Amino acid sequence: MRTLQALLGTEFPLIQAPMAGAQGSALALAVSGAGALGSLPAAMLTPYALRAELAVLAASGRPCNVNFFCHTPPEPDAAREAAWRATLAPYYAELGLDIAAVPAGAGRAPFSADLADLIAPFRPPVVSFHFGLPAPALLARVKAWGATVLSSATTVDEAVWLQAHGADAVIAQGLEAGGHRGHFLRHDLSEQMGTFALLPQVVRAVSVPVIAAGGIADAAAVRAARALGAAGVQVGTAYLCCPEATTTALHRAALHSDAARHTALTNVFTGRPARGIVNRVMRELGSLSAAAPEFPLATAAMAPLRAGFEARGSADFSPLWAGQNTRGCCAVPAAELTRALAAGFEGVH
Amino acid sequence: MRTLQALLGTEFPLIQAPMAGAQGSALALAVSGAGALGSLPAAMLTPYALRAELAVLAASGRPCNVNFFCHTPPEPDAAREAAWRATLAPYYAELGLDIAAVPAGAGRAPFSADLADLIAPFRPPVVSFHFGLPAPALLARVKAWGATVLSSATTVDEAVWLQAHGADAVIAQGLEAGGHRGHFLRHDLSEQMGTFALLPQVVRAVSVPVIAAGGIADAAAVRAARALGAAGVQVGTAYLCCPEATTTALHRAALHSDAARHTALTNVFTGRPARGIVNRVMRELGSLSAAAPEFPLATAAMAPLRAGFEARGSADFSPLWAGQNTRGCCAVPAAELTRALAAGFEGVH
Repeated sequence: MRTLQALLGTEFPLIQAPMAGAQGSALALAVSGAGALGSLPAAMLTPYALRAELAVLAASGRPCNVNFFCHTPPEPDAAREAAWRATLAPYYAELGLDIAAVPAGAGRAPFSADLADLIAPFRPPVVSFHFGLPAPALLARVKAWGATVLSSATTVDEAVWLQAHGADAVIAQGLEAGGHRGHFLRHDLSEQMGTFALLPQVVRAVSVPVIAAGGIADAAAVRAARALGAAGVQVGTAYLCCPEATTTALHRAALHSDAARHTALTNVFTGRPARGIVNRVMRELGSLSAAAPEFPLATAAMAPLRAGFEARGSADFSPLWAGQNTRGCCAVPAAELTRALAAGFEGVH
Repeated sequence: MRTLQALLGTEFPLIQAPMAGAQGSALALAVSGAGALGSLPAAMLTPYALRAELAVLAASGRPCNVNFFCHTPPEPDAAREAAWRATLAPYYAELGLDIAAVPAGAGRAPFSADLADLIAPFRPPVVSFHFGLPAPALLARVKAWGATVLSSATTVDEAVWLQAHGADAVIAQGLEAGGHRGHFLRHDLSEQMGTFALLPQVVRAVSVPVIAAGGIADAAAVRAARALGAAGVQVGTAYLCCPEATTTALHRAALHSDAARHTALTNVFTGRPARGIVNRVMRELGSLSAAAPEFPLATAAMAPLRAGFEARGSADFSPLWAGQNTRGCCAVPAAELTRALAAGFEGVH
């Protein structure tokens, strides 16, 4: 079996987690330049922006990972949308905004044939997916240019499924991880495990390399993940405060505050559970709200609230994505953080 | 600072987790005999039984840990008890049992002056508590005979509190752990973290030794916990299928079945959240039920259901305590398992 480093084309089996909304090619380039794998989150980019970012990455000659969501777009549900808007109406009133002026609609498009066409000329060496894998014919197109395919598993069953459906390596996403949970087979969050329990069970269940994610913020944690059988690690939260990230000032301030000690899974920002620092909207609506429309439809009516409150200097309605271990968040250059994390791979070849 | 081994009086900084209802002195003796620290869960023992167990342990001349709950007993609440009985009534009917014949009452007494009097002559070298620590005067009595005092923290704040209130070492109880959650400062379960996130943050926050718990089932996990800064580990679930444990045959069968892949936190058995394998009563009432009376009052009306269904060969109403990693559960002698786990401490002195 090829090592994970060989599959990724990197010096270290270390992946910077794709973090849509908090980074673009600048962070990915800095990480790839330091010997790990930088990632470009594509889910929120327009085709024009995605092409521009891919061109930047391709020009660097360094390996990179392009990340897509691959959910099934939900049927719009007018009653649910109306209920969601009724729930949010008091906040629109608070800001003096007109909720009727907000168009409904999806915020994130899944991977598609059009996107495959768009990225094919750039032949990104690694493509990762969240929420499962694309349909076989679409995945085959990605594999046709030799890309290594990754996806996240939140349970042992999902890891086995991903291996069977063509993933070249599996990311074991422990419950500590920030951002969207990657589950796709079942939606009962209680089935999802912490890294310490999930990782060794996934390692035992699949033969492809396993990448640990969730709670990993320093070289010691990299060594711990290796002890549990991980071939590599994926680190997100620790990169959020690097100067190359596009994390907002409000988000950075929250990461450095005591508030960061309390994260929770919430669906109020997008419709799917994702881990972020608890803030006002999560407290007032409940972190997991039955009123939130299906992913990604919750986003449309939340976006103006986020913008309105941020304009007032408040992160009360901002998704403050973060994992359970924010102590690694420092304003250090991404290359420096990458080298510090990579020290955990000493002796690995 | 004394090493954790010195504090525990053992060869290895490895503690067999106290598991009320699933073990007594036999398991503790086997573990202590193999160089680790065996534990006696005292919460469900009568004074007579506790004295007998302590005599057995004292006669061995080996170190041991005696474990107590130290909750504040709740005020009985007639309305809540009535609602709970109404919730359970259909199951009583299913078994042909008379719910009116069941006396209300507590199932587990907290540590008390009487219990301190009872155990003092045995001078157990280690005493551990769950749900915080006893009041200062009562704790002082335990310390008076030189006992090392341990307690569990589920958050960084709890670890800091325990150190400030006299714990000689702190158990960082990751969310993966089986049985009762040890939280005592706050009751929002979303504040609790997986081992990968909790452990390094607790290590950073306190100066006393930190014992990792949650998801640790083999020597590799011991090494991983050490990499994250743990001075020692506490292991429960992996011991449940040892011949020296009193784990019921139904519980053992569940641990070895596919059902063990799905555990959840539930309050339906005792009134406090504890992790167990999902079974019928958890599915039908919801794992976390608003109807359950406060700990430990939920126990009284559940006990006859457990007994009735177990008599029919069913674990549908049994608390099947287990952590998220049951893959370590083997029917091997506890001394053998202890030695296998202790291999993870190679090179530690």
